[in-house]
Amino acid sequence: MANKKKISIVLFSGDFDRAIAAFTIASGAAAVNYEVNLFFTFWGLNTIKKEKGRKALGKGLLARAFNFLMGGFKNLPLSRLNFGGISPKLMTGLMKNRNVATLKELLEASIQLKTNFFACEMSMNILGLKKEDFIPEIKEVLGVAKFLKLSEDGEILFI
Amino acid sequence: MANKKKISIVLFSGDFDRAIAAFTIASGAAAVNYEVNLFFTFWGLNTIKKEKGRKALGKGLLARAFNFLMGGFKNLPLSRLNFGGISPKLMTGLMKNRNVATLKELLEASIQLKTNFFACEMSMNILGLKKEDFIPEIKEVLGVAKFLKLSEDGEILFI
Amino acid sequence: MANKKKISIVLFSGDFDRAIAAFTIASGAAAVNYEVNLFFTFWGLNTIKKEKGRKALGKGLLARAFNFLMGGFKNLPLSRLNFGGISPKLMTGLMKNRNVATLKELLEASIQLKTNFFACEMSMNILGLKKEDFIPEIKEVLGVAKFLKLSEDGEILFI
Repeated sequence: MANKKKISIVLFSGDFDRAIAAFTIASGAAAVNYEVNLFFTFWGLNTIKKEKGRKALGKGLLARAFNFLMGGFKNLPLSRLNFGGISPKLMTGLMKNRNVATLKELLEASIQLKTNFFACEMSMNILGLKKEDFIPEIKEVLGVAKFLKLSEDGEILFI
Repeated sequence: MANKKKISIVLFSGDFDRAIAAFTIASGAAAVNYEVNLFFTFWGLNTIKKEKGRKALGKGLLARAFNFLMGGFKNLPLSRLNFGGISPKLMTGLMKNRNVATLKELLEASIQLKTNFFACEMSMNILGLKKEDFIPEIKEVLGVAKFLKLSEDGEILFI
Repeated sequence: MANKKKISIVLFSGDFDRAIAAFTIASGAAAVNYEVNLFFTFWGLNTIKKEKGRKALGKGLLARAFNFLMGGFKNLPLSRLNFGGISPKLMTGLMKNRNVATLKELLEASIQLKTNFFACEMSMNILGLKKEDFIPEIKEVLGVAKFLKLSEDGEILFI
């Protein structure tokens, strides 16, 4: 096990296209037998929210705005040319037409290939999120020290 | 050769300034004898498109929008304050005035210093791009497994 | 000392939230005894500008626009939903309420924990910035070759 190659991905972005890149690398690496760790932080936490989660932050203007931003998996915007949220839906259509795995399929593949999911404690505090807001595959909520320990002797990508 | 230091750069972004960062690191690393691999994916594929390429995606609204976005090297936007495309031109002017290599010069330097160019198969599928749409210096079209193999025992940056 | 673990962070982005991520990782890594190098480049240079610095670029339109963009630490925008600069202030309020270290505190912690600060020569040239524009903790202004040398045998993150 000590010799297994390892890659750790910090998914900071909540952009639809960057999430596709992250899960493509994660599932692809797991498929060739890498140990894969995914750390979700800030907007990246959106990709692992339960579909029908509680509203997190209360009632202030910023709170409501963040709730809107943190709308979960189905509301990830495209990093360019988002067209008010239509582009990710159209892009998903394109991906199906071309037999490319969709984001949902990539996420499921990453889970089945036993990549490890972790959530960042500090950004959860800032955004008012709790472990129960996320899909059950999240192994642990952790901070930088533990993240570094888990990532030792492997590659780290910040996406 | 096994002892040569290695750096691999995934260029995901199509932003003018991030492309400058990628090619600056690539050419700088090659100049001090690193093995350098550049993987172009998603919007980053724009930096290696032929200047007069075919339109890729057909005629739908999204297709036309992506064609516009994938307008190639000369149409990369600045990540901030793009002013409808004027900023990159002005920034290139600034770079010339200050004797800093322009993006075009950095790309050419990276080629002359024998950095390796690769294109991402999956994002080409999504965006409807083919190998002949790119400059001839692209060595290979590949997926995650091959990318990880080529990047082994080196640094990886995601830009 | 040769066995000390090392992490190097290239802070390219000038976004408030990405700067928080960078300094959180930097100070967290230093706290568990990593050698930490922070390389500030392009918009990331904003995080290390003196609060009352000179205007850098002269009087042209682009120059004034860049001066506005390079307004320093207090003017970092949020990468999403910036609301004309109000969001970072509100987010800082949230961070205080929840006992999360603010960006200013994270920067100060990084300095006290002896992380190393470096500024990128090329982007300073493009943006017309000089070493005296930055806080005195900047150890050195350097290029890619020196950056790679300092980052050898450690992790590199591009943020």
